[in-house]
Amino acid sequence: MNIDIGNALDAVAQPGVSEDSLRRLDDRVAAAHDRIERGIADEEFGYAALSLPETTDPDAIHDAVAPLADSEYVLTVGIGGSALGAATVADALGVGERAPVLDNVDPQSLQTTVESLPLSETAVHVVSRSGTTAETLGNFLVVREAMADAGVDWTDRTIVTTGESGPLHALADEHALPTLSVPEGVPGRFSVLSPVGLIPAAILGCDIEAVLAGGHAGRTALAPSIFDCPAYAYGAVAVALERRGAHVNAFVPYAERLEYFAEWFAQLWAESLGKDGMGQTPVRALGATDQHSQLQLYRAGRHDKLITLVRPRDRSQLTIPDTEIEELAYLGDTGVGELIDAEFEATEASLAAASQPNVRVEIDRLDAASLGELLYGMEAACILAGELLDVETFTQPAVEWGKRAARGLLGDIDAPETDAITEKERLVVAPDRSQ
Amino acid sequence: MNIDIGNALDAVAQPGVSEDSLRRLDDRVAAAHDRIERGIADEEFGYAALSLPETTDPDAIHDAVAPLADSEYVLTVGIGGSALGAATVADALGVGERAPVLDNVDPQSLQTTVESLPLSETAVHVVSRSGTTAETLGNFLVVREAMADAGVDWTDRTIVTTGESGPLHALADEHALPTLSVPEGVPGRFSVLSPVGLIPAAILGCDIEAVLAGGHAGRTALAPSIFDCPAYAYGAVAVALERRGAHVNAFVPYAERLEYFAEWFAQLWAESLGKDGMGQTPVRALGATDQHSQLQLYRAGRHDKLITLVRPRDRSQLTIPDTEIEELAYLGDTGVGELIDAEFEATEASLAAASQPNVRVEIDRLDAASLGELLYGMEAACILAGELLDVETFTQPAVEWGKRAARGLLGDIDAPETDAITEKERLVVAPDRSQ
Repeated sequence: MNIDIGNALDAVAQPGVSEDSLRRLDDRVAAAHDRIERGIADEEFGYAALSLPETTDPDAIHDAVAPLADSEYVLTVGIGGSALGAATVADALGVGERAPVLDNVDPQSLQTTVESLPLSETAVHVVSRSGTTAETLGNFLVVREAMADAGVDWTDRTIVTTGESGPLHALADEHALPTLSVPEGVPGRFSVLSPVGLIPAAILGCDIEAVLAGGHAGRTALAPSIFDCPAYAYGAVAVALERRGAHVNAFVPYAERLEYFAEWFAQLWAESLGKDGMGQTPVRALGATDQHSQLQLYRAGRHDKLITLVRPRDRSQLTIPDTEIEELAYLGDTGVGELIDAEFEATEASLAAASQPNVRVEIDRLDAASLGELLYGMEAACILAGELLDVETFTQPAVEWGKRAARGLLGDIDAPETDAITEKERLVVAPDRSQ
Repeated sequence: MNIDIGNALDAVAQPGVSEDSLRRLDDRVAAAHDRIERGIADEEFGYAALSLPETTDPDAIHDAVAPLADSEYVLTVGIGGSALGAATVADALGVGERAPVLDNVDPQSLQTTVESLPLSETAVHVVSRSGTTAETLGNFLVVREAMADAGVDWTDRTIVTTGESGPLHALADEHALPTLSVPEGVPGRFSVLSPVGLIPAAILGCDIEAVLAGGHAGRTALAPSIFDCPAYAYGAVAVALERRGAHVNAFVPYAERLEYFAEWFAQLWAESLGKDGMGQTPVRALGATDQHSQLQLYRAGRHDKLITLVRPRDRSQLTIPDTEIEELAYLGDTGVGELIDAEFEATEASLAAASQPNVRVEIDRLDAASLGELLYGMEAACILAGELLDVETFTQPAVEWGKRAARGLLGDIDAPETDAITEKERLVVAPDRSQ
């Protein structure tokens, strides 16, 4: 993974950061690097995520999934960090169509998904650290019943990833389900390089060893200076720009198979850094598609955005056929990859010409190793950013309020938060149907 | 469509708007309403979009698609406003799986999509007003060749929506393809209630008359006051909050089938209002899923966001089965719809308790009529917002620079913009591989 921060410099962009101020910031980066290395060495909460390329045992994953190796589909039942990593890896490695996810509680789509799958050829991967996540367990109960109705023995088709205890663990024990652990000390959004993120890819025959090797390459690339470490360069520049007004981070991969990656990044960034009145708002986008949707705003709107442009350097070959249409003759014999790369570079230049800060992230190609490196790099960038912002990167205290309110509404607990719902301030505007 | 703006009032939110200032703003809304009505009456550029429920002829669409009525799939080949509307309607009406879209130029995914479709049972819907859009025509040439290779007569399986002239129109004439018009005076991102947005749904048997009837209901609901017109209430509150610092608009439907709707909204909002250093940055999200991803930021981050929460009031019935797991007993016999609605209300209250401004948008249920009303309402809201911001809502001048630069790179034209690409400022950080 390489990072080009040229278009984030103040010679180009507004807001922009000077090379001098990057050099000054580099002392803090060195100190943060020390802190992070200490956290890794001591297996501290959160920092332990950066050891996963070494601590995750691919053989244990292969052993656990072996009884399910005949599966045509893998349905991940999880939400947030328990689902996004798995979907990201499967999608990036080209098996996304066979790795659907239940990460919502929409009755319509839940039913459609369950009905569309050949349940006797589907592995169900249930992921919840606590084993009590309402959405996940509710969905699992629906899937389990659908399997029973279809005459499929759910105990033959289910694999569980959960904590060391809890109701899901107990259930797995009772029915002797293959079970792997959510790694200790690793928050869900940092767990992609563990069984949480790798199980569907493993069942579907992807090279998870290469993903971990890519992560390992990211680990060895950590170094105490912005100018030597792509991941820290990205994290530091993002923070420097945020301080100068770039309160939005639009993450724009130019590769369809990284569409889920952008969503994974959005969780990583928002939940880790969105604290204490700070944190960039991540915006998931997709190149070149969103040039026809968001680029007008990115160029001509406020100067409050960092645009992160991501691409693989090598692409598969596919040529646009010659055409009898004169106005399109210039496209004939052009590679589709050439076209998207031309648009990538043109968009990057067009943002720079409008002084809108942007950063280029490049990987060699979209394969398992580069994916692992990119995942690891963005996690390290995020942890570095958290150090520079002095926030608690690994917690998400603000989501608890709503969880309690919802459980109160559903009658599980008595929660004062629930009262706020009935006392809601209302000013409803409805159409006048009498016309 | 109803709007509840109670949680955007300054009694609740920071930033928030007082009822007094809304009343003062209402004079400008009345004037803007007059302007919009005049634009509709005179079929002025852009405003003409608000006539589509009346001017779109569903019978002409049915006639044009009749030869393709046997299609199992409809592949839309378009980009931006030529694709998002079609995908949004198909997805919302439950036929999204059968209505894939080629709206990118990624060689890998292009090949995968084409190979995965049974081409002899696929209708190809090519959409480009100019008939020269590089991405769209390039993709079409690839699809056409794939059909030829598969022994499928592409002229039997292609329908075209384009302007009154241009190379795509000429091609359609030459091969006697069914052809419909991109409506005059309607920018792509406002064209969903025309053949551009309705053709795939029509081929796949959806009730496009009901979509248009919903649009018509939206038309009759336009009224010269925030307090009488839900669409204008939404647009006016969004502008009032933007002026007070809500520079981001997170659009969060609590229905999976509206996931594409959020993307459609993001284009509408960004490309129409992202001008002159203004315009909210739209963020596409999805409830309840993103509570486990973005809510931490939305509650505890900067107060620079309007959160737009959207839901259908009625949902399909699906009950979570009773369970032997004690900790989850409270979920047993709960409707999945009850669960997502509890989360909706809890999230809304949790944002209000943190003084983060939010608005509730409700439709009756996710059907064709409510969809049409919601699409129309958001278009009207956007146009009203453009009037209040004094921007040119219907143009997108900032995207031209990059298009010229890309065409220069591909050798089609000589463009000074292309030089900026080679002169790019670079500061590359690469990993030290010598370690």
